[in-house]
Order: sequence, then C-alpha cells, then structure tokens
Amino acid sequence: MSAIQSYIKENKKRFLNELIELLKIPSISADSAYKKDVLITADFVLESLKKAGCDKVELCETPGYPIIYGEKIIDKSLPTVLVYGHYDVQPADPIDLWTSPPFEPVIKETEIHPEGAIFARGACDDKGQMYMHVKALEYMTSTGNLPCNVKFMIEGEEEVGSESLAWFVPRNTEKLANDVILISDTGMIANDIPSITTGLRGLSYVEVEVTGPNRDLHSGLYGGAVANPINILTKMIASLHDENNHITIPGFYDNVEDLTAEERKEMAKAPFSLENYKKALDIDDVYGENGYSTNERNSIRPTLDVNGIWGGYTGEGAKTVIASKAYAKISMRLVPNQNWKEITELFKKHFESIAPKSVKVVVKPHHGGQGYVTPIDNIAYQSASKAYETTFGKTPIPQRSGGSIPIVALFEQELKSKTILMGFGLNSDAIHSPNEHFGIWNYLKGIETIPYFYQYFTELSK
Amino acid sequence: MSAIQSYIKENKKRFLNELIELLKIPSISADSAYKKDVLITADFVLESLKKAGCDKVELCETPGYPIIYGEKIIDKSLPTVLVYGHYDVQPADPIDLWTSPPFEPVIKETEIHPEGAIFARGACDDKGQMYMHVKALEYMTSTGNLPCNVKFMIEGEEEVGSESLAWFVPRNTEKLANDVILISDTGMIANDIPSITTGLRGLSYVEVEVTGPNRDLHSGLYGGAVANPINILTKMIASLHDENNHITIPGFYDNVEDLTAEERKEMAKAPFSLENYKKALDIDDVYGENGYSTNERNSIRPTLDVNGIWGGYTGEGAKTVIASKAYAKISMRLVPNQNWKEITELFKKHFESIAPKSVKVVVKPHHGGQGYVTPIDNIAYQSASKAYETTFGKTPIPQRSGGSIPIVALFEQELKSKTILMGFGLNSDAIHSPNEHFGIWNYLKGIETIPYFYQYFTELSK
Repeated sequence: MSAIQSYIKENKKRFLNELIELLKIPSISADSAYKKDVLITADFVLESLKKAGCDKVELCETPGYPIIYGEKIIDKSLPTVLVYGHYDVQPADPIDLWTSPPFEPVIKETEIHPEGAIFARGACDDKGQMYMHVKALEYMTSTGNLPCNVKFMIEGEEEVGSESLAWFVPRNTEKLANDVILISDTGMIANDIPSITTGLRGLSYVEVEVTGPNRDLHSGLYGGAVANPINILTKMIASLHDENNHITIPGFYDNVEDLTAEERKEMAKAPFSLENYKKALDIDDVYGENGYSTNERNSIRPTLDVNGIWGGYTGEGAKTVIASKAYAKISMRLVPNQNWKEITELFKKHFESIAPKSVKVVVKPHHGGQGYVTPIDNIAYQSASKAYETTFGKTPIPQRSGGSIPIVALFEQELKSKTILMGFGLNSDAIHSPNEHFGIWNYLKGIETIPYFYQYFTELSK
Repeated sequence: MSAIQSYIKENKKRFLNELIELLKIPSISADSAYKKDVLITADFVLESLKKAGCDKVELCETPGYPIIYGEKIIDKSLPTVLVYGHYDVQPADPIDLWTSPPFEPVIKETEIHPEGAIFARGACDDKGQMYMHVKALEYMTSTGNLPCNVKFMIEGEEEVGSESLAWFVPRNTEKLANDVILISDTGMIANDIPSITTGLRGLSYVEVEVTGPNRDLHSGLYGGAVANPINILTKMIASLHDENNHITIPGFYDNVEDLTAEERKEMAKAPFSLENYKKALDIDDVYGENGYSTNERNSIRPTLDVNGIWGGYTGEGAKTVIASKAYAKISMRLVPNQNWKEITELFKKHFESIAPKSVKVVVKPHHGGQGYVTPIDNIAYQSASKAYETTFGKTPIPQRSGGSIPIVALFEQELKSKTILMGFGLNSDAIHSPNEHFGIWNYLKGIETIPYFYQYFTELSK
C-alpha cells in the first residue's frame, strides 16, 4: 500500500465528514435569497485551505461573491500548479424529485457506487471535486511530499457565469502566475475507464420575454383576435430548429470546426452503448441533429435548448386566460471557434426579427463563455495521464465533453497557461439534477491521484 | 322618475354595500385552498335570496360545490322565469398586477365609468351581475310588482366547468321547470350601445404533459443528444396552427357553421374601431385567422389558445438544465354545431400522434361545453329588447359573444327552454384579468332593466 493510500485509509472518515459539512451549506449563487450561505461557504473554503497547509490565504473581494485565494510557495525555481474550483452550486429545484433533502447529505449505495455515494447538491459539482484538491494538498504538506509550488483560486459564481472571476483574473495576473492550471469539474467515462477531458463547449445563455396585450385577457372575449404571447413564443422557439434539427439562426454555424473523418473515427472508439444510454434515461429514442452520433451531438456540435419556460395560468385547475407575457430561458452550447458574444448577438438579432408585429420581444443576455480544446502532446497532459495510469492501472482516454467551463478559455488568454481537466465524477452522478451524488470511491481516488500529477509534472518540467 | 328608479335612488348605498360584502369573499373554485370561502359565499347567496322575498330557498348538495335554489311562486297559471348565475370567481393571479387587492373592493372612477366602478375579482363576472337579479327581485316583491313566478339557480363551479350543475339539472327538471331562462353573465357593446348576446362559443379545455428523460439533465453533458421536452412541446404547439392561422387538427372544422355573406354583413354593422381596440390593448397589430375580421375571429370562429405553459427552471438567474417534463394548459373555443367531446377526442388523438418517439405525451381533458345560438324571433328576446328600449331609450343590437357559458346548451336540452343573455358588463371591465371592475351605473341600470323584462314577458305570454 502506497503512502498516500495508507494516509487516506487513516483519514477516510474525517475526509468524508468534512465534505459533508461543506455540502450542508446551500450556496446557490443563482438565487440572492442564499447570499448569506454563499458567503459562509467562502469562509469554510478559506479555513480549509489554511488547515491544509497554505502559507497565505486571502478572501478577495470582487463586484460579486468573493474569490478564495491560497498559496504555498516552497521554491520559486520550481514549477507552480494553479488549482481552480468553485464553491457555489446549482439551484436544487425541482425539490420534490429529491429522495433526500439536497442540503442534508446522506450516504447511499448504488449499482454504480457499491461502496456508497454522498447524495447532496454540489456533492460532485463542484464541492466534492474541489475538496479532493484541498485534501490532496493536506497530504502533501503534512507528509513533506509537496514537490512544487501550489496556488488555489476557488470562486463562487461558476454556476451563474463567473463574471466576477472574469473581472478578477486580468487584475491579478502576477498573483495567479503559474505553469499549469488544474481543474476537477468534469467527469470520466466509468470507474474502470478513466478519461481526461480535452475539449469543452462554450455557452451563450439568454432570457426572452414576449409581450402581447397590456393585460391578461379573457380567452373567450379576445381569443382568436389578438396574438397570444405563449402561442407566439412556441412558434418562435420551434422555428429555431429546422426539420434536420439544424439551428436556423443565420450565421450560427459559420465558425464551427468540422472534425476530420479521422478524428470522428477516433471519437467513435470510446466505449458507448446506445441501449444503456436510453435505458438509463428511460427514453425510447434519442433525438438530435441529423448526420451525427449521440456522442458527437453532445460534444463537438453546438446546441440550442430551452432551459425554462413560463407564462399564463400554471396553478391547479383551469383558467381561461390569454396571458399578457410569456418567458423562456434559452442556452446555446457552442464549440471551439464560435465566439459566444457574436452568437448572443446573432440570436438577439434573429429572435427579434422573427417576432410578428402583434407582440413586443425583449432578449436579455445572461452570460456565456468560449469553448476550449487542450492539446494532448504537452507535459501537463502527459503528467495527468501518468497519474491515472499509476492509480487506475490504465491509460486514460482523451475525451471531448459537452459541458462548459467558460473561464478555461479566459485563463489561457490572460494567464498564458494550459488547463488540465482531471475529472473524477460520472455522468450518472446527476449533477444539475435532483439527487446529485458523488461516489466515495471516486472522491478518495481523486485524492489519491492528484499528488501523482504534482510529482510527474515537477519531474517532466525539469 | 319611475317607481323602480326612485327605489334604486333610495337604496343605492345599501345595494353597493351588500355587493361589496359579497365581493370580499375569495370564492375561487379552481383552487381547493379556497374551499371554505366558496362555501361561505354559497350561504351568503342563500341568505340574500331569503331577504329578497323568495318563499323557499334551498342549499342543494352536489358532488362538488352546492347549488343555491330559491323560488317565489305567485300563481301557477303565470309564466315562470328561471334566473341562473354563479357565485364562484376566477383565480386572481397575476396578483402583482392588481392596483388594489382583488378581495378588498374599492370604488374608483375611470374614463368609461365616470360615476365610479367597483374594483374586485368577481365584480362583473359574475357576482355583480348575479346580484342585480337579487336586488331586482327585492324591488318586485317588496313593492308588489312581481308579475310572474321566479326561480333562482346560482352555482359555484362556473369557472371550472359546471360539472356539478350538469349533474344537478337532469335530476331536478321538475323543480327547475320554467318558461324562459334569464342570465346576466355577458357584456354589452357600450353604455350608450346596449346589446343582447345571441350566440356563445363552446369550449374544450385540456392539459398536456410531455416527458423526455426520467430526470432533469445537465444541458452541457446531454444537450443536443436527447429530446428536450420543452423544445418538443413548443414544436408540437406551434404545429397546431398553419401559416394562415387555421387550426391543423384533422376534422376540427368539419361541423363549423359557415355564416352567409348576408349574416356577416349584418355583424359588420356593429360599431367597432380597430384603432381604439389596438390602443386599449397597447398592441401594434391584431393577429388571427386569415380571411376574417377581428369581430368574426372572436365570436363566430373557433380558436386554440395556450392558457398556461411551464417547465424547467423559471427562477431568478440561470440554470443550465434540460427538464424532464414540460406542461401546457390549452383551450379551444368552439362554435355552435362543434361537439366539444368530439373536439377533445380529436385534439387528444392528434396531439399524441405528432409526438416524436423520444418523448411520452399525456393529454388530460379538463372540461368543456357546447356553443349556443338563441333565436331573436321569439317573445323572450322581444321582451328583453323592449326592456332595454325602456331603460336605455335605444333598441339593443343582437350580438354574438366569443365567451362560453356551456350550461346554456345543457339547459335547452334538459329543460327545453330558451335562454336570454341580458349582460350589463363591458369588455373593458377586465373580467378574468387583474383589476376586474363593474360600473356602478351598469350595476344599477341592470337592476332597473330586469323588472321590465318580467313585465313584458308576462304580457307577451298571455
């Protein structure tokens, strides 16, 4: 048993309890009602970095929620690893679909997690995966095994677009100077199929408001004679995809990279069972852009999804009303080379242009970010790959993810360094969904694997 | 000044205060949270009929809310008028658009109501208009001016489909036997343009549920690869109208009566200003079925309107989620000869048939009712017309309404008698909308006009 393995064995109970305490705080950044809790969580992270052995920790004020910074510099001539993570979480609703309260963590066994998984909002995304790094640091500092310098930057607005981080990073390039950025906010294919995320999608998130008459109307007296904003909104949204499920916004695909047949063949090698995929989601069929496989549709192709829609009477029973207003939240996942600000503009222009004269339309951009592709021929990727080989006994598969971590592109631009995405979660962990969870095995495996990345990266940097 | 006019003058303040007390009770039949208030309202109506001079009043139990019955039989050889009304009201939401609380009635002057209007949910629909009949009865009984027999039947489920009334009427045809049914639950063109409603639209109200994946999903990891139930729902709803705004449900128009050019020319004579219509609703353009005028679209043509839609994240900020389910409440206004049960079946069959294999669809019928046309060549209509002439000094215009009072068709079928719709409200009274109100002038004018109907109907029946 390696030194790290026995350290984890000795401290397993404490590692779990500390994470459970962190998960109890409802740090929902999207909802201002939870502001106090988000701030309490920031303090929790600050304290945990102190205890883990950082020489210097700071709560950095921003226009929004604070960014927690910590560092341990052992020798300026050695490389520096910058760890990024976030302490905020997604809203928990629909609350009634949770089998246990989202902020009262419980450990349950599942088919995929026979050793148990912690069920709580943020268990995997990203409190659990962020905290792996804190505990890995604790091991390295307390046992004299930290081979290089380390910096931590943990933010509280990742789930709402990282605006304060985008403000903070350009103003602190020296403080944040590093040789590689390390993030665990993604997943891997399976516990016996380790993978490293080499690509992320960008994002453009907007909210639309359609206004018809200046007040709710009786659907009998006015029905048929005035534009019903809900009917109009459904027409407008439906028109954003054509019969092949291509997005109809003019110019939307202009900068989309077309992968070569070779690259697509490589991708197709990743183990995937369409039957299991459909079974896991309880759907009779998948649905998406013609001409692409499921794995291509959710990784290398852009999308347009309605994330929320509302208008009119949604209560019990029936109300014969024509609403004055209808709303939708719409997000587009983008691929590398698509500029999210450009796409947001294209959406706004197009959506306003297809509105009939009988309604008024407002498009309000929420936030967005660029896609990213990381090369696999550099020492950072090689160090991560060797770390997985050491602890999983298998070479990890490079994999494009459909998710977005917009600030990765920002880091490269502002800090001139590459990001390595070492994710230990699974797609089945239900992040952003009710009953989010994180396998205890995965949590501990992350803590075990991370120090090896530090070791190999330091060696390969010489 | 006529006897009725001076009686109204003497009792005006009391007439208003009694209505205000009635309006204070939130009798929302659609929301079971208000059950107690609905029952309290039933008792209020019962007491008011007693005080107004009924010999016999009964609270008639039903499978749902009670029906209040009252009668005063003065001579079996004289004709009998059956008054119908309802004591339940629409839900008040969106509550934040009310300028004063919906169940705290206040009197305010408006451009159209310089003598003041009572603002409250139910002020016009139908508590105010129903209570006119109670006060008209009080006048006739207390002054010895009741020329015939009268029966009252006031229900508490009109706003949710009158299911209990449909159960009650066939079981009480003898009790309810009458020569004409009198209802004030419609409007007139303007205070200086009296009109009598001669047609009503039918209704079919359904709720639809679209289910995609078995849980909410991360829109990055799954976006583009699985059917998003909200996107699918918008596509399905949008497809229910073609480019001419005709409804695309096969067979939907099969039994729609086509009015002759002559009839349409008659209709077009009703005073109407499209400019004022658009100004009142603050819309730049009207919207509807090609080939028909605004007044035709909202009266003699069937419609399909979404009354409510919801799904996904509708809170503050952004959530990148693909919802598991999306919902909509959809109602169709029908014209005479369209069978609402048939139409409901056609909708269900069609809506299920257009769902892609990647989602599951459930269509749940709420309620419905038949349309109705009343002839104008009978003594009932002539009596009403003469009553308006007497109190307005003008012959009322026969007018088709776009609204629905499904039970009118039921009455004709079960009780074999015609219904006269003497409405004293205005379209601008915002029934079913925030800030519903009823002009004091209209309220008192109704009380003044109703007794003349009794008088002329009794005379013409000889």
